[in-house]
Amino acid sequence: VIVAEFEGLKTSVDAFHRGRFHLVQPVGGGHRSGIDAMLLAAMVPNGFAGQLADLGAGAGAAGMAVVSRCDAANITLVENDPVMAECARLSVALDQNKAFSGQIKIIEADVTLKGPTRLAAGLDDDTFDFVIFNPPFNDPSDRKTPDSRKQNAHVMGAALWEDWLRTATAIVKPGGHMALIARPESLGDILGAIGKRFGALRILSVHPHKDAAAIRILISGQKGSRARLALLPPHVLHELGSDAFLPEANAVNNGERALV
Amino acid sequence: VIVAEFEGLKTSVDAFHRGRFHLVQPVGGGHRSGIDAMLLAAMVPNGFAGQLADLGAGAGAAGMAVVSRCDAANITLVENDPVMAECARLSVALDQNKAFSGQIKIIEADVTLKGPTRLAAGLDDDTFDFVIFNPPFNDPSDRKTPDSRKQNAHVMGAALWEDWLRTATAIVKPGGHMALIARPESLGDILGAIGKRFGALRILSVHPHKDAAAIRILISGQKGSRARLALLPPHVLHELGSDAFLPEANAVNNGERALV
Repeated sequence: VIVAEFEGLKTSVDAFHRGRFHLVQPVGGGHRSGIDAMLLAAMVPNGFAGQLADLGAGAGAAGMAVVSRCDAANITLVENDPVMAECARLSVALDQNKAFSGQIKIIEADVTLKGPTRLAAGLDDDTFDFVIFNPPFNDPSDRKTPDSRKQNAHVMGAALWEDWLRTATAIVKPGGHMALIARPESLGDILGAIGKRFGALRILSVHPHKDAAAIRILISGQKGSRARLALLPPHVLHELGSDAFLPEANAVNNGERALV
Repeated sequence: VIVAEFEGLKTSVDAFHRGRFHLVQPVGGGHRSGIDAMLLAAMVPNGFAGQLADLGAGAGAAGMAVVSRCDAANITLVENDPVMAECARLSVALDQNKAFSGQIKIIEADVTLKGPTRLAAGLDDDTFDFVIFNPPFNDPSDRKTPDSRKQNAHVMGAALWEDWLRTATAIVKPGGHMALIARPESLGDILGAIGKRFGALRILSVHPHKDAAAIRILISGQKGSRARLALLPPHVLHELGSDAFLPEANAVNNGERALV
C-alpha cells in the first residue's frame, strides 16, 4: 500500500511484530528496516520502564519495537533525514499504532550535535534511562548503493562512533543503559569509543547459521559501571542449509522475547 | 611421578595429546598448563610449516602441542621465569618427546624486552612465521593466588598487552601470523594494542557450554593485513549439564583438530 510521496519517494505501510505495530517506510529508496532494528530492540529487557531514546531512528522501527513489547516505555525517536523523520511522524500517526502513539516523541536532529546545539534540539544531559542506536554502519569501501539516502543510512566512518557514543553518554542518566548494533569489523572502533564511558559491556554476536561467522554484533552497557565485559552466547538466525528462522530468532524478530 | 625439585618446587611428568607429548610441570605451585594452551595451539592451522615462537611458554605446552600436530614446525619457546624455563628444558629432554625435540629451541628471556636487549636475547626482527602467546592474563582484582610464581603467570595489567603485542609485531615476518588467548574482559585492551599492527583478525569465543558467557577469547591475525575482523562461531567445551567434553572440544584438546 503506497500511502504518500515525498520528493519523489513512495512509501508503504509494513506490519512488524505480527501486526502489533506498523511502519511507514520508503519504497524503492531510503533505508528500510528489517531484523537489525528488531535485534537492537531486543537488547532492551522485558519490563523496561522509563525514557528511551532511539538515535538514528529512521522510520522508528527499533523504538516502536521496544514500546510494542515494553508498555511502560516512553520513546524519543531522533532522526536527521527529513524524509525518514516524516516517515516516523506518519508511522506514529497510523491508526494501527494508536495503542502507544502517545508514548512516542520525535526529534528531527543530528545525533552528532554538540553542547548548546544538542541541548537546543531537545537532547538534554542525563535524561534517558536507555539509549539505543542503529547507526549507519556499513563500510563505505564495501558496498556502493546507488541511492544517496540509503547511502547516508549505511555509511559510517570510524570517527563517527566517537560522535555517536559522545551523545549517547551525555544524554543517558548515570547508571542508565545503552545498546547498539554494528558490523563485526567495527568492534575495535566501538570498544575504543566506549572506553570507560560504559561498563558491564555485553557483546552478542549474530550468526546467519551456527557454523558461519557473525554478520552483526550487539553491544550493551551501563553508564559509569566498572563491571567487566562479557561475551554472551551467540544469536543464530537460521537452521543450517535453510532460510527459515529458528524458533528463538523468530520470537526475537516478532517481539516475543528479549535477547538479554 | 615426581622427577625433580627446584627451589623447593616438585615437578611431575604429564601426558598431553593422548601421550604424543609430555611436559615436566611444577606440582603444588607455579603455572600448570591445561586446555588454554591446547586451545591456543589449535589456532595454528593444520600443515603449518616454518618458525613459530611461543611467548610466555611456561613449560612449553602450547609450542609442543603445535609441533606434535604440525611436524614441519620449528618452535622457539620464550620464557622468563627460571623455574618454568627449566621445566621447558626438562620437557624437551624427555625421551617421550624425542620425535620432535630437535625442532624445539628455548630462549630464557622477558617477552617485553625492547630494541637491542631483545635482539641480544635472540628475538630478532621479522624472523617468525607465527607467534603465539598465552600471557599472564588473569585480572589482579579477581583472584588472589597464594603462590607468587602462579601469580606471575596469571596477573597482567592492561598496559602489558601493548608490550607483548609490540614484541609479537616486531619478531613476526611481514605477512606472518599471531594468535593469543585471553579472558573476554581484555578484549578492548587487546584490540587497542593490536591497532593496525595485525589485520584479518579472527575472534573465537570459548564457552563452557552453549548457553554460558565466554570464559576465554582466542584472537588471530596477520601482520600488515588490512582485511576485516571476523567473529567466528564459538567453541563450546561441554554438553549442557555435563563436565564431559563435547567430541569437537575433545578433538581440539587432543591435537586432532585445529580451530581454524
